[in-house]
Amino acid sequence: MRSDIETDLSGSLPVWNALDELDRRLLVEHAHALHFSAGAHVHGIGDECIGVLLVKTGSLRAYMLSPKSGKEITLFRVASPDTCVLSAACILRMITFDIFVDAVEDSDVLAIDSEAYLRLMEHSSEVEAYTYRQAAERFSDVMWIMHQIVFMSFDERLAVFLLDETARSGSQALHMTHDEIARHMGSAREVVSRMLKYFQQEGLVDLSRGCITLLDRQRLHTIAS
Amino acid sequence: MRSDIETDLSGSLPVWNALDELDRRLLVEHAHALHFSAGAHVHGIGDECIGVLLVKTGSLRAYMLSPKSGKEITLFRVASPDTCVLSAACILRMITFDIFVDAVEDSDVLAIDSEAYLRLMEHSSEVEAYTYRQAAERFSDVMWIMHQIVFMSFDERLAVFLLDETARSGSQALHMTHDEIARHMGSAREVVSRMLKYFQQEGLVDLSRGCITLLDRQRLHTIAS
Repeated sequence: MRSDIETDLSGSLPVWNALDELDRRLLVEHAHALHFSAGAHVHGIGDECIGVLLVKTGSLRAYMLSPKSGKEITLFRVASPDTCVLSAACILRMITFDIFVDAVEDSDVLAIDSEAYLRLMEHSSEVEAYTYRQAAERFSDVMWIMHQIVFMSFDERLAVFLLDETARSGSQALHMTHDEIARHMGSAREVVSRMLKYFQQEGLVDLSRGCITLLDRQRLHTIAS
Repeated sequence: MRSDIETDLSGSLPVWNALDELDRRLLVEHAHALHFSAGAHVHGIGDECIGVLLVKTGSLRAYMLSPKSGKEITLFRVASPDTCVLSAACILRMITFDIFVDAVEDSDVLAIDSEAYLRLMEHSSEVEAYTYRQAAERFSDVMWIMHQIVFMSFDERLAVFLLDETARSGSQALHMTHDEIARHMGSAREVVSRMLKYFQQEGLVDLSRGCITLLDRQRLHTIAS
């Protein structure tokens, strides 16, 4: 069991090679394997700080959630073999915001306890640099979302979303309800439905129950850029 | 001249103490003092990478700009004695976006050449950790702006903006045109003017040419939260 965890850590934590034997043992002893079913809640505000997450299989979705309205917006995804350090925001002094994390699909995750990870960061600037570098990568993701929200019209944003999602899955069919799309985009279901209907009239997509099929990627690309 | 720069660096770069004599000399030799008048352009896409900026006096404003529409949105400010590392995005591998920087007021800045800074980052993980930690702090600023855009209505956002700006200056009077406010907020002048007029009717602010005076901070706070 512990040796499985050691294999996982050495395989997917790039900073593993910079650690001495004692640090490695600390990590192995404070990491534990977790399984999340598709759609399961992984981490949120008010939860115990779950720590640094290494995705072994599957993928996670990080999002902001308004406690007032329940409105959400997806910020980034973390797929195998990536790491999510923002779920350990409690130990990252410079990160003063909190995010929510759900499993997109059935996922196996290795969670490294925050306290142990913090100890490691404090005496290894390699680990600290690695951690904040990971955060900076997410910063870039969020800036792209911000760019879309501030500078793009809704038809452009929806075209980007449809192209990205189908590129990720490798299929022209996207199995998502209009409500799910709205939650990813921080929008309302009605707005998504109206625009999809317009895309359908234009021959860009075909709509059926719980499924959107892309018919003309070329023209969607033109709208998106 | 060089000894002035050394004094500035040792005084405002927290990572100075972690550097050896050789690294310090490298920094001193590759830093130069710059002066920017209020409103002057400091850094933008397409410019040479200006490097890491240490603000000695005055303050800078970092923003996103849509090349298509010319629309802007202010992301964060950097005031003395803070550092802006995102103006050196060219050397930060994980930062894949570009920002614009202007001087808010007359400002004296020390610019550390990107190439020299990169060399330092590559052989000192303290410097690397410091740099990405600075980026993470800006990430937190941007997430707060994102939260406002996605989850707050425009009256809430405008109340936050008026309260923040006057808290910063320590005066109840804000000397800004509606157009300037719109550019900070990524909005349109008409939208700002309409909402300010409503705030005036409600007795929250008083409007005169190029100036907004806050009359009821308490109620603006209620709107903002």
